[in-house]
Amino acid sequence: MNPRWFEEPLAVPDAAVRAAAHARQAQLTKPPGSLGRLEELGITLAALQGSVRPHLDTPWITVFAADHGVVAEGISAFPQVVTAEMVRNFARGGAAISVLARTWNARLEVVNVGTVHPLEDLPGVLDNRVGPGTANLAQGPAMSAAQLHDALTAGHDAAERAAIGGAHLFIGGEMGIGNTTSATAIACALLDLPAAQLAGPGTGLDAAGVQRKSQVIEQALRLLRDPQPLTVLQTLGGFEIVALAGAYLRCGQLGLPVLVDGFITTAAALAAVRLRPELADWLLYSHCSAEPGHRRLLQALDARPLLELEMRLGEGSGAAVALPLLRAAAAVQADMATFAEAGVSSA
Amino acid sequence: MNPRWFEEPLAVPDAAVRAAAHARQAQLTKPPGSLGRLEELGITLAALQGSVRPHLDTPWITVFAADHGVVAEGISAFPQVVTAEMVRNFARGGAAISVLARTWNARLEVVNVGTVHPLEDLPGVLDNRVGPGTANLAQGPAMSAAQLHDALTAGHDAAERAAIGGAHLFIGGEMGIGNTTSATAIACALLDLPAAQLAGPGTGLDAAGVQRKSQVIEQALRLLRDPQPLTVLQTLGGFEIVALAGAYLRCGQLGLPVLVDGFITTAAALAAVRLRPELADWLLYSHCSAEPGHRRLLQALDARPLLELEMRLGEGSGAAVALPLLRAAAAVQADMATFAEAGVSSA
Repeated sequence: MNPRWFEEPLAVPDAAVRAAAHARQAQLTKPPGSLGRLEELGITLAALQGSVRPHLDTPWITVFAADHGVVAEGISAFPQVVTAEMVRNFARGGAAISVLARTWNARLEVVNVGTVHPLEDLPGVLDNRVGPGTANLAQGPAMSAAQLHDALTAGHDAAERAAIGGAHLFIGGEMGIGNTTSATAIACALLDLPAAQLAGPGTGLDAAGVQRKSQVIEQALRLLRDPQPLTVLQTLGGFEIVALAGAYLRCGQLGLPVLVDGFITTAAALAAVRLRPELADWLLYSHCSAEPGHRRLLQALDARPLLELEMRLGEGSGAAVALPLLRAAAAVQADMATFAEAGVSSA
Repeated sequence: MNPRWFEEPLAVPDAAVRAAAHARQAQLTKPPGSLGRLEELGITLAALQGSVRPHLDTPWITVFAADHGVVAEGISAFPQVVTAEMVRNFARGGAAISVLARTWNARLEVVNVGTVHPLEDLPGVLDNRVGPGTANLAQGPAMSAAQLHDALTAGHDAAERAAIGGAHLFIGGEMGIGNTTSATAIACALLDLPAAQLAGPGTGLDAAGVQRKSQVIEQALRLLRDPQPLTVLQTLGGFEIVALAGAYLRCGQLGLPVLVDGFITTAAALAAVRLRPELADWLLYSHCSAEPGHRRLLQALDARPLLELEMRLGEGSGAAVALPLLRAAAAVQADMATFAEAGVSSA
């Protein structure tokens, strides 16, 4: 495998299919435009899947889990042990993403890219640990160059498994106590914004906690050598955030549409798009979360999410909630009758 | 059957179940509040279904279809024959609501409450014609007192069929060329607003068409005897709008939660809530449509819809697109593990 595999070409959405899908939309038995954003979404899915009649029967969800050395700075409302506990909860089917995946018959896999301690064998959980959590990003680089490479590769491999598994859509999720601090630092570095403009409560910090988190992020940003995406990810990343970026990049190469979740996954998406701007074509955005920095990140990506339900859980849960909207868009694009087929008069 | 059946008592949401559902939400394995609006929605569904673990396995969609005498005034972008043509399209499975109902395994029935001509037997379509379309509401009352009664009863009976069929949720849809004119007139009468503030393009009028529609509505409003909901419905209604109001009222009596669709169904909901304010407890709102008057109607009902996707199709399609959000809310409320069950540390 080329160690710089992410520099290889991305797939290109099918312009001819897009045009044909657009023409089909205009003939469906409804007033033109009356399905609103579902129409453009159906056309986009057609272009990405290379089929005038797109479908989403097999959505795939990979949740990447890892720990963060920066928890030593007291930036999370929950203790670090919760990362591993939640991986076990995913495996037993009790987490929000487990329930949502079952509800939509989505394939769910969990990839441990770096809990602080190894975990016992768990059903549906792959052991792909890049290290025992990241180093404390407030004190030095979060990871080595080798760990950056390994975490990107963990994402690459997850996208490959999804494609081989017949996925029609890829959703990445994350679990990692402390990871809004890492994601916020990445976003600040890429957008050249001070921490105070993006830092938020994460899982539930109070105002003093957010201020402390903001100071920790400022300290980390001062250690950043340059604002190149790979440097930013290595210096400020979490393993799960790097893996998400790697997964998104590989999805773009494989031509597999991606539905981005919330604040942390959007930070990963921004890093990946900065590395490969053509990736933007393959990314759809599910929701605007309650984490205050998310709106700013979405603006930077020119993204218009489908939902705004004040969610802020992560795990891929916002994308899993939005998934049926894509399924609806694909279904009407694929299966509605045209005016001619149905013998309905047009305006 | 009591001819004033709609004055009989409504069901009351279960306050004890609501409290228990609220307590359960607080123990689920996620930061408190992190599922945003899904949390309140899950609790509400629990209270309405009388079960701490609500479910939405059997959603029911009834689309009421009827014609409107007011089309003689040239207020629609589509010819009147489209009402009947679309009923045939529903029966053959080619319409947006047909596709969406199939996608979510929802039961779909169509009730013809008054196409201008009788229709041949069609699978999945009930013949419950109250008359050969309404009279032209710009020239006189849209319907007689007997027709008002019959249309309300058609709705009552649809709600009964849904409840007997084991429905966990009722969605009402509508099809009727000209019916945004009727719905706008009803909304203006109930909200005491001039037509110019609520009239919109419907299926696709241009600015001159909207102005003409507005004048027709003003003419109709001058013929209104009093602003009581039943008078408003009789004078300005469509049979399908009256049937929707009847269905919603009967759902409230039966304790069957309702998911309201777009502009026309919300006008029906407003009339029903004006008649029986307690009905408000049983109505959930799916989306804010692109028809400009919808936002004003939703405000009057203190409703906060889940989606805003610029849809304006009707048929129940916006509610059908939002349906999986309710299913997601019910699933996490019902099936997530608690901190204690999963052995996860809390904050």
